Amino acid sequence: MTIFSEATAVSAEGEGRYRAELSDAFGFETKQDGPVVLNGGYLMAVLMRAAVAESSHAHPISTAVSFLRPGLPGPAEVVVERRREGRTASMLRASLLQNGEPLLDALVTTGTLDPDEKPVHLGEPPAPMPAPEDCPPRGRERPKRGFPANVDMRFDPAVMGWLDGNPTGRPEMRSHVRLAGGDEPDPYVLALAIDSLIPVVTNAGFPGWSPTVELTWHLRALPAPGWLCVYGSGRMVNQGWSDEDVEVWDAAGNLVAQSRQLARAARTRK
Amino acid sequence: MTIFSEATAVSAEGEGRYRAELSDAFGFETKQDGPVVLNGGYLMAVLMRAAVAESSHAHPISTAVSFLRPGLPGPAEVVVERRREGRTASMLRASLLQNGEPLLDALVTTGTLDPDEKPVHLGEPPAPMPAPEDCPPRGRERPKRGFPANVDMRFDPAVMGWLDGNPTGRPEMRSHVRLAGGDEPDPYVLALAIDSLIPVVTNAGFPGWSPTVELTWHLRALPAPGWLCVYGSGRMVNQGWSDEDVEVWDAAGNLVAQSRQLARAARTRK
Repeated sequence: MTIFSEATAVSAEGEGRYRAELSDAFGFETKQDGPVVLNGGYLMAVLMRAAVAESSHAHPISTAVSFLRPGLPGPAEVVVERRREGRTASMLRASLLQNGEPLLDALVTTGTLDPDEKPVHLGEPPAPMPAPEDCPPRGRERPKRGFPANVDMRFDPAVMGWLDGNPTGRPEMRSHVRLAGGDEPDPYVLALAIDSLIPVVTNAGFPGWSPTVELTWHLRALPAPGWLCVYGSGRMVNQGWSDEDVEVWDAAGNLVAQSRQLARAARTRK
Repeated sequence: MTIFSEATAVSAEGEGRYRAELSDAFGFETKQDGPVVLNGGYLMAVLMRAAVAESSHAHPISTAVSFLRPGLPGPAEVVVERRREGRTASMLRASLLQNGEPLLDALVTTGTLDPDEKPVHLGEPPAPMPAPEDCPPRGRERPKRGFPANVDMRFDPAVMGWLDGNPTGRPEMRSHVRLAGGDEPDPYVLALAIDSLIPVVTNAGFPGWSPTVELTWHLRALPAPGWLCVYGSGRMVNQGWSDEDVEVWDAAGNLVAQSRQLARAARTRK
């Protein structure tokens, strides 16, 4: 078992209840020896495994999530309700709970995608990024633990000037992403990738912590092996609410996932 | 009371339960004397009224909806659960039921927006459309009943060539929208407007019925009085799944609502 598949595993306890053990392997240390806060995409992946296990279809086509509370490493539970079974799609409600309190509430639509059918792109792909080997890892020394150790992010240097006080001035962020543990992309890895970027508003004068309130993402095609390209953009900030759109493209050149999230941001522009 | 406020009214029955009477005023006749199918945005507006009534905040900031079954005119019920109360935002789950079966399952985040605070736009507005008076109503004779009678849509003629067999070839659709009954835009009118367009894939070789499976929208600012401009676009069709993004801009030039929906579409391109 890889680190990711072990960290996202769920075991059925009957009647739509699943047990999980949330792992610090996909968390961030908020400060030296402080509590570890788990990545939202990781929490989605755990919830989605239970929803798909409960469904008659193979893939999580659409997942809408409210983020109610941050998740911490330790035992957790997913409660899944089947709401409608269909030939093309099934709908479920799912909640990830910890200590009896909901962390994530979700609506999940499942379906079954054929890996061999070719998507019909109706628009242009994003402008290409430099190759992963030309995008240095974010820090000089690779961190030994948690999300930064287990998720290999290679941000386009063109959007990383904000580290030296030179943001691009536009709401944008982009990176190559793959799991350091060797897992090839699948719908659960996509859930992680789609919430992996530094907030796009960092480049638009709203730096700092930007907790996700709501995130909806759609699985558009089954991803090919290799690096994922993750592109983020945004439209507006109002009264501390910011939007962020993310597209994930796979190594075969297909749009495999789309998300929009609404997050909190700084209330005033720098 | 206006037609819209009457058609979307809910009355509290206690313990998070609300009664509604779904109206054919926002429905479509699928064929001569056939059943009336209600607009999805109208159903969202009914559900949102109950969710906001149950919340300590004034506005539905984010609403994610699974569409399980079509709604028909007649009695319905909204069941709302408070999931988290916060100072900035509260989260609820809500379902619209008819004859005991769920039509819509939703996650709603409420908050309170200040109408006087100015949004910070981080991108460009869409290209302007011709004025409403230069966008003829869709049919030659105004229909007397239902959604087409009560929602004044003025589609940009540039995206309506598909009626004469000349689609633009791109996934696009846009229209001015206002309620014929005189209601000025508010968050509930926005819910209707954001799901009012003819499917964008109509212009991209996938004509026909396109039922919404999931739609998430965010209220970004309180809308000014006057016409709304509704802009739709899309990215991809794969195995009968299509995405549609909609932005609603108000008469004051602000982005007031953003949505993405995942819908079913024809499986092959014409």
